Amino acid sequence: MNVTHVRAATHTYNVYVGENLRHWTADYLPKTYPSILIVTDEKVARYYLEDVKRSLSQKHVAVHTIQSGESAKSIDVFYELQTKAIEFGLERNSLIIALGGGVVGDVAGFVAATFMRGIDYVQMPTTILAHDSSVGGKVAINHEQGKNMIGSFHAPAAVIYDVTTLATLTEQEIRSGYAELLKEALLSDSAMYEAVMANDLSALTSEKLSHQLISGIDVKAAIVEADEYETDQRKFLNLGHTLGHALETILGYGSWTHGELVAIGLLFAIWVSEKIYGVKLPYNAIYRWLKSNGYPLKWPSINSETIFTKMKSDKKTVSGTIQMVLLQKIGHPVMCEIDDRHMLSYLRTFQNELLSSNEQGGKQHEK
Amino acid sequence: MNVTHVRAATHTYNVYVGENLRHWTADYLPKTYPSILIVTDEKVARYYLEDVKRSLSQKHVAVHTIQSGESAKSIDVFYELQTKAIEFGLERNSLIIALGGGVVGDVAGFVAATFMRGIDYVQMPTTILAHDSSVGGKVAINHEQGKNMIGSFHAPAAVIYDVTTLATLTEQEIRSGYAELLKEALLSDSAMYEAVMANDLSALTSEKLSHQLISGIDVKAAIVEADEYETDQRKFLNLGHTLGHALETILGYGSWTHGELVAIGLLFAIWVSEKIYGVKLPYNAIYRWLKSNGYPLKWPSINSETIFTKMKSDKKTVSGTIQMVLLQKIGHPVMCEIDDRHMLSYLRTFQNELLSSNEQGGKQHEK
Ligand SMILES: NC(=O)c1ccc[n+]([C@@H]2O[C@H](COP(=O)([O-])OP(=O)(O)OC[C@H]3O[C@@H](n4cnc5c(N)ncnc54)[C@H](O)[C@@H]3O)[C@@H](O)[C@H]2O)c1
Ligand SMILES: NC(=O)c1ccc[n+]([C@@H]2O[C@H](COP(=O)([O-])OP(=O)(O)OC[C@H]3O[C@@H](n4cnc5c(N)ncnc54)[C@H](O)[C@@H]3O)[C@@H](O)[C@H]2O)c1
Ligand SMILES: [Zn+2]
Ligand SMILES: [Zn+2]
Repeated sequence: MNVTHVRAATHTYNVYVGENLRHWTADYLPKTYPSILIVTDEKVARYYLEDVKRSLSQKHVAVHTIQSGESAKSIDVFYELQTKAIEFGLERNSLIIALGGGVVGDVAGFVAATFMRGIDYVQMPTTILAHDSSVGGKVAINHEQGKNMIGSFHAPAAVIYDVTTLATLTEQEIRSGYAELLKEALLSDSAMYEAVMANDLSALTSEKLSHQLISGIDVKAAIVEADEYETDQRKFLNLGHTLGHALETILGYGSWTHGELVAIGLLFAIWVSEKIYGVKLPYNAIYRWLKSNGYPLKWPSINSETIFTKMKSDKKTVSGTIQMVLLQKIGHPVMCEIDDRHMLSYLRTFQNELLSSNEQGGKQHEK
Repeated sequence: MNVTHVRAATHTYNVYVGENLRHWTADYLPKTYPSILIVTDEKVARYYLEDVKRSLSQKHVAVHTIQSGESAKSIDVFYELQTKAIEFGLERNSLIIALGGGVVGDVAGFVAATFMRGIDYVQMPTTILAHDSSVGGKVAINHEQGKNMIGSFHAPAAVIYDVTTLATLTEQEIRSGYAELLKEALLSDSAMYEAVMANDLSALTSEKLSHQLISGIDVKAAIVEADEYETDQRKFLNLGHTLGHALETILGYGSWTHGELVAIGLLFAIWVSEKIYGVKLPYNAIYRWLKSNGYPLKWPSINSETIFTKMKSDKKTVSGTIQMVLLQKIGHPVMCEIDDRHMLSYLRTFQNELLSSNEQGGKQHEK
């Protein structure tokens, strides 16, 4: 079992990563709580809810199960959870446990951030992607018109990551999570990048996976410690998300996974970086790795103007100009303002690039 | 013009109190903002919105007017405001101005706390009560089952309090605001208490009012500086609110004013304090002052069990026991756990007390 300490503004918390931790939940809680509300989704509940309930020592435990998938990050589910919390009798010194992927973590975390102006919560991530979302205290729900538009910063009291639960993930969810690991690798260094790219996602060993998740958590923890409230370098974690979030909002949350769209966003960011900085980045290698691991790299059937308009209303826009994270080289991200005319033209050319790569297997990019 | 500095965890902000400040809003903003959303209610808009709009130097200003009254502190209005903010193109570095009473301040403040995980907002209070609610950074909306159940701590960037706007308040709203001033006086010292009790609310001078509002703000500021997140002495500001909030939730927000119910709650707190500590507090003097200033001291037609049940689900409950702020003497508040049996019996006897006071003009309390 591995422990990482994360210093947040309000407190320091532990991130435990290991096998079968869910059977010992009580042991990893930072203190005892008079009452606990477990929030989980219907899929995760089927596999792991009983184990977690059994592992809690106190009597006063309630469960609220939400639908599976991104559509649960809604104002309705948020309010439903608040109602549940009141009816169950949750108090200021109670705990919410978020048992599930990034969706459960984000919505349950936002409920914890706002119920009675903030109570403790513990993240128990069960997806690969949630190694990222469970650390750093960003919590949110979606607005119909924008991803994660309503939220807070509210650091968890602990993160209890039982990697054994990852065994039941579908291939699509493994891919989704690996997109964020790839992002962290690109922000970190060549060693981590090579390690991620060396994976065949259909043949991951538990040991290798744990190792890479811990690396990813370390990258994330270092960044959020340096800039918890995203005034500066935490913005780099949005690598791939300018396009990713816009697509996610337009596609209506849930038809594609978050990571699949981030993967396309990462390619776009690399592609734009090459154009703007005239550098050579491993666009082709990444394209091929994504392709061979089954990422759907088709361009969703949306025109560039629609995407562009959505990007403009994103949280990352400053004074009307789109801010995008680019790479000068692996481990060297930069923030770049991109004016509207250029952005539109990049979107159009990248769309063509992707379309023809799909027809030709990605070969035409090699000049 | 008076300035009080308030040190919050995240930043220090100024509270400006003076006449006609609304005509110079831009001058009191802590910095320039690319875009501003003014949130106000329909009554306040009629009187003061144009003045404020005219006083802002930038072009990019939008307005969203909500209904007047407590019912606007709802999840629906909250979401409507988020939608407006997105559609208007508000960004991370934009500003929300809350122009109005405690209702506008609480809901607009909570939107500012959560829009894109938190943007700046400025309080422009226009009620007496809002001298209290605009300082300290508590923001919230109501849940159907509980007052202020969903909220955050989010300190304003500034408070711009134009006391000239108070001239259009109804008598009922003046009473409502003075209940909080009375509360602060009881928490503070005899001098402030005497000053508040010396008022005839139908003949307030602007000078006297300003002076007392500044005293109230000083009391509040000192408490929130010492304990911003309400782990300790900030709880004292709930004096009168254990009963007040329960009644407000049951009565359905808005049929009585907040302060009218707090006034009943203050009487109850004093009455229980006398019972528990065997001290002599100015119950009768306060009763008479409230009565002669037109406070409706009738017991709302709700039975004690219903009120008791509502109290139990309040934010102030700890491990199932009701916590109530009591007074040992003026300026000496204490937190007291009151077990269920006693609380129920206090509620019943106080109800009778109030009923017979109403019949007899409050005389029977003098033993
Ligand atoms: N807060 C942050 O810092 C942050 C960072 C990155 C992503 N996110 C958010 O995370 C969300 C995506 O997270 P996600 O990919 O974990 O989505 P998710 O929570 O929807 O999980 C994906 C799917 O896997 C299922 N599932 C979860 N655990 C399982 C398990 N162990 N076995 C089988 N099935 C399981 C879920 O029911 C769901 O259908 C997005 O909403 C994104 O915005 C947040
Ligand atoms: N956040 C806090 O720390 C805190 C503290 C105390 C109270 N509160 C909250 O404050 C709210 C009550 O505040 P309030 O009493 O100001 O209520 P309010 O905002 O509803 O205002 C009362 C009424 O006066 C009207 N009004 C406002 N300004 C006016 C003016 N200048 N002239 C004429 N009419 C005017 C409003 O339209 C409304 O009808 C409650 O919801 C309470 O929970 C919050
Ligand atoms: Zn992501
Ligand atoms: Zn109050």
